[in-house]
This record gives sequence, C-alpha cells and structure tokens, in this order.
Amino acid sequence: MIERVADKWTMLILETLTEHGTVRFTRLGDLVGGISQKMLTKTLRQLEHDGLVTRTVHPVIPPHVDYQLTELGSSLSEAFCGVWIWAENNHAAVLQARRTSETSRSLAGATRT
Amino acid sequence: MIERVADKWTMLILETLTEHGTVRFTRLGDLVGGISQKMLTKTLRQLEHDGLVTRTVHPVIPPHVDYQLTELGSSLSEAFCGVWIWAENNHAAVLQARRTSETSRSLAGATRT
Repeated sequence: MIERVADKWTMLILETLTEHGTVRFTRLGDLVGGISQKMLTKTLRQLEHDGLVTRTVHPVIPPHVDYQLTELGSSLSEAFCGVWIWAENNHAAVLQARRTSETSRSLAGATRT
Repeated sequence: MIERVADKWTMLILETLTEHGTVRFTRLGDLVGGISQKMLTKTLRQLEHDGLVTRTVHPVIPPHVDYQLTELGSSLSEAFCGVWIWAENNHAAVLQARRTSETSRSLAGATRT
C-alpha cells in the first residue's frame, strides 16, 4: 500500500485539497503545478478508489466536477505533514550535500583524466 | 525536492537502513523486496547525492560496499514514520474503500448494459 501513497502527485494533490477544501478539476490542475491532465485524472481516480477523496458531479449547465478530501484523506495528509516540514527545514542541507557531491565527482573525474 | 523523497523505493530503503543500520548492497537488495538492481543502484546514488546515506567501499578481497543513513537520512526516516503508522492503521479502511468502489463500478456497468 505504501507505494500508492508514497507518490509525489498524491502528496501534492492531498496538500492542495487540504489547503483549498473543495476544488474543481480544472482549478486543481492549475494549483498542482506541472501535473498533466492525464496524470491528474489517473491520480484522482486512484485516490477516489482508495477512499481518500470524494468526487462530486454537478449536473448544471455547464456541468462540472469537484473533489474534496474524505476523513481518511485528511488523516493521510496530516501524516505527510512531517515530511513537508522535513523538506522545508532541510532543503538547504540537501542542496549543500548535492554541491559537495558534484564537487567530489568533478575532482574524481579530473584525477582520472 | 518533495518528488525526490516522496518515492516508494526511497521510503523502503530508508526504513530498511533504519532497521538494519549498516547494510551491504546485495543484502539491501534482498531486504527491500521487489527492487531491481538497477533501481537500487539509482535510488542509492540519489540518496548519497542528497546527503541522506553514506557509501563505504571496503578494499578487501573480495571488495564490498555498504550503506548507512546519515543524520539527515535518519531525520527523513523519522519524518516518514507518521506515514508508515498511517498505512498500518488505515490499511483495512483503504481495502474496504476499494471493495466499495469496485462494487459500485460493477453495478454502474450492469445498469448501462
């Protein structure tokens, strides 16, 4: 099951719905930057299937569909809070590690030529 | 950055190193069930690049390589604890939601034929 939740788009959609409550499909696509319509549709269908979001179709003209977290979805979003906080607190440390790693790689490359 | 950590194999490797401490590459592949050697190599290289694990080469005969979490890696593993606990506590609820979803899908299919 962890592979279903340990997913970037799942995390981003959960966070967006936590922040914005009930959100229309198109708006959700705008708010979750960089997600394709196909990936948004697929991830939302999985989240709905897993009982983490509810999908409501509004039979008006023009019809529209919106999504919101279930209680189960909210509890998962809460569980991810620690990971978001970690990412914010440690972003600089990871960037620093990457620079160090790149430097040692280029030094290693230089000594081999 | 979240896409780098919000990943199933990252979570599974972090958890395995948290549980087993220093682990050889081959043993890590055994402990993280279902991971290919290529994916294990790629994910470990990313984790090392991000400063989350250290890689130690032992120049003995035969040489071997082992991995362990850095402090940064341990702190991320801790941040994921909440997600592991959520998955354990809510596994049944998700399975139930899937069954309900499958039933309503098959009913919807039946009414359309």
